[in-house]
Amino acid sequence: MKTRLFSPGPVMVPENVLLKMAEPVFHHRTPEYELLFAEVNDKLKKLFLTEGDVFTLASSGTGAMETAVVNVLAKGDKAVTVRGGKFGERWDDICKAYGIDTIPIDVEWGYAVTPDQVKAAIESDSAVKAVFTTQSETSTGALTDLEAIGKVTRAAGVALVTDAVSGLGAHELRPDDWGVDMVVSGSQKTMMLPPGLGFISVSRDSWKWIERSDLPKYYWDIKKYKKSIEKNQNPFTPPVTLIKALNASLDIILGEGLENIWKRTEKTAEAMRAGVRAIGLDIFPKDYSNVLTAVLLPSTVDGGALVKALKKRGIFPAGGQEKLKGRIIRVAHIGYLDEFDVLSALSALEMALKEVGYSFAMGTSLAAAQEKLAE
Amino acid sequence: MKTRLFSPGPVMVPENVLLKMAEPVFHHRTPEYELLFAEVNDKLKKLFLTEGDVFTLASSGTGAMETAVVNVLAKGDKAVTVRGGKFGERWDDICKAYGIDTIPIDVEWGYAVTPDQVKAAIESDSAVKAVFTTQSETSTGALTDLEAIGKVTRAAGVALVTDAVSGLGAHELRPDDWGVDMVVSGSQKTMMLPPGLGFISVSRDSWKWIERSDLPKYYWDIKKYKKSIEKNQNPFTPPVTLIKALNASLDIILGEGLENIWKRTEKTAEAMRAGVRAIGLDIFPKDYSNVLTAVLLPSTVDGGALVKALKKRGIFPAGGQEKLKGRIIRVAHIGYLDEFDVLSALSALEMALKEVGYSFAMGTSLAAAQEKLAE
Repeated sequence: MKTRLFSPGPVMVPENVLLKMAEPVFHHRTPEYELLFAEVNDKLKKLFLTEGDVFTLASSGTGAMETAVVNVLAKGDKAVTVRGGKFGERWDDICKAYGIDTIPIDVEWGYAVTPDQVKAAIESDSAVKAVFTTQSETSTGALTDLEAIGKVTRAAGVALVTDAVSGLGAHELRPDDWGVDMVVSGSQKTMMLPPGLGFISVSRDSWKWIERSDLPKYYWDIKKYKKSIEKNQNPFTPPVTLIKALNASLDIILGEGLENIWKRTEKTAEAMRAGVRAIGLDIFPKDYSNVLTAVLLPSTVDGGALVKALKKRGIFPAGGQEKLKGRIIRVAHIGYLDEFDVLSALSALEMALKEVGYSFAMGTSLAAAQEKLAE
Repeated sequence: MKTRLFSPGPVMVPENVLLKMAEPVFHHRTPEYELLFAEVNDKLKKLFLTEGDVFTLASSGTGAMETAVVNVLAKGDKAVTVRGGKFGERWDDICKAYGIDTIPIDVEWGYAVTPDQVKAAIESDSAVKAVFTTQSETSTGALTDLEAIGKVTRAAGVALVTDAVSGLGAHELRPDDWGVDMVVSGSQKTMMLPPGLGFISVSRDSWKWIERSDLPKYYWDIKKYKKSIEKNQNPFTPPVTLIKALNASLDIILGEGLENIWKRTEKTAEAMRAGVRAIGLDIFPKDYSNVLTAVLLPSTVDGGALVKALKKRGIFPAGGQEKLKGRIIRVAHIGYLDEFDVLSALSALEMALKEVGYSFAMGTSLAAAQEKLAE
């Protein structure tokens, strides 16, 4: 059966990128690798839109999140954490694991945090040194306005860190202009690679926090990566096959152009939203992201059964997590996907909805999506 | 040019394992992945020869070393670290990064630590809770007798942790029988995979230390991996392509049989040692490992020039590190290599040595190696 991944990571990987990983393994302490890694690092800066460094870790995205926490904070600092979903909660958990007292902002799932909420949280305690946010919250499909939050954190002189694991490359994000000091990402999302690489970009301003950080760290110590990257190297053995594949996927991304990808992703997401609304369903988040569409299911529809009915057609969305389990399905618009793939997703969704007993006129969502795509 | 990796990691990867990584990416929160991961975990126990758990991390081997430190120790504990090379020193550095006071045993490079040295270090301070060792020290080519050290640590009731990143699968290691509580490894050595996965096996006895450990951790928290592995899952997104490839490489390894691999590696290493001795060169370590042969170069030979002369023939050994820079070359016997590959290495070594001005009768090392291989 032909399968299509519509999960918000892992995503589908272009064929020529997959083939890179089948090439013979090579050694990383060589001039050839250093040439490759220099090229990759240059392209990563273009993807992250930063003049700062972008460090590549052998880890999942969570490892890159932990790297942000242990390098930006020092003992006794406090942190504001935005908890509007599963991944926002993770920031809070990581901070606490290191003994950092947090000031959590509990945002209703599906909504974005507001600049005023962030301002109030920062002002509530002078020990706050950093604000941890989620660009596109994968568990709810909500999008944070980082440009607006950046104005608040810059004015307050605290660091702004964001989890852009799923959002980077799908939504506009200008860390240097907006004052986002650390941006965390992972390979298995818009970078169109398998999982295995974590990334963290570090603004020039960030070094003042990194220099005073005294939280315990070894593998996550950004200073080690900084020292190595200047020689186009890694402090620890890098996953060389993934880095070679990354070079190929960055060529595809930069070849299409970031702004074009943002627009294409938006158009695809708009088509998806138009399609599901046309058959009487709602979008779950109020402040929605284009990374994925979280579709709110009517109470008569069993979310688990719906996901099963989609998967047996080779269409892999994600279900709801934690408090949204069974209540939503999530269809991603990132990875090796284009506008036409959204039609496959909607087609399967229509057939699966029929199967679980939800009524509407067949083809309605496809027609609505097609209208948007043709605009 | 045909190239052959004789570096002690990354190593050459079998063709069918490489091809696994070019297969379409799949999702890990599926019954299919859980079936695969259950199979992999079962095979890993057979490779690590333990009834305990073997946890797979998205990290390099160093990440797995850090995992051992932050899970086996608690604040205020002391640790004995065996520093007989670059990787032994790393244990000491990681412990110190977490504020752990260490009692280092400085072993002359090329020698193995003795049970008496370990016993004396443990007895010197009642706060010692763990001993950190290196099975095969890649920087020097020396091998530690873990069976003998295990008797000392068991009698003293302290944990024994070993870095078997390069040694696992090449040398006999029976953690459950010998009392080695945690064994750390990485994918890019005898497992014949690209870098990107770290491993740590945890003996049943280890849980008493893990339960009392209060060093800060999130991504390295073994309890999270334990909870997940019971459902054949990972707490954080796993590098699915590497795990699929791991399943294929474990089939090759277990198909040949561990004892057969130990014997083959020994025979290959013996042939290499016989070859280099036949042309008047010495083996650097006194307590030598079969993972790699560290050849001591005469003072008239420029180590850097020799490595270059080998590489231009497509043969990639490793040079010396730190205080051994320029003084040794290291030829590994692990990865997708067999007895015949050692002849290529010796042939290139002879030609390269001639080129840098070292005299001997051509073919001598090949004949000596051939005698050993034919035994």
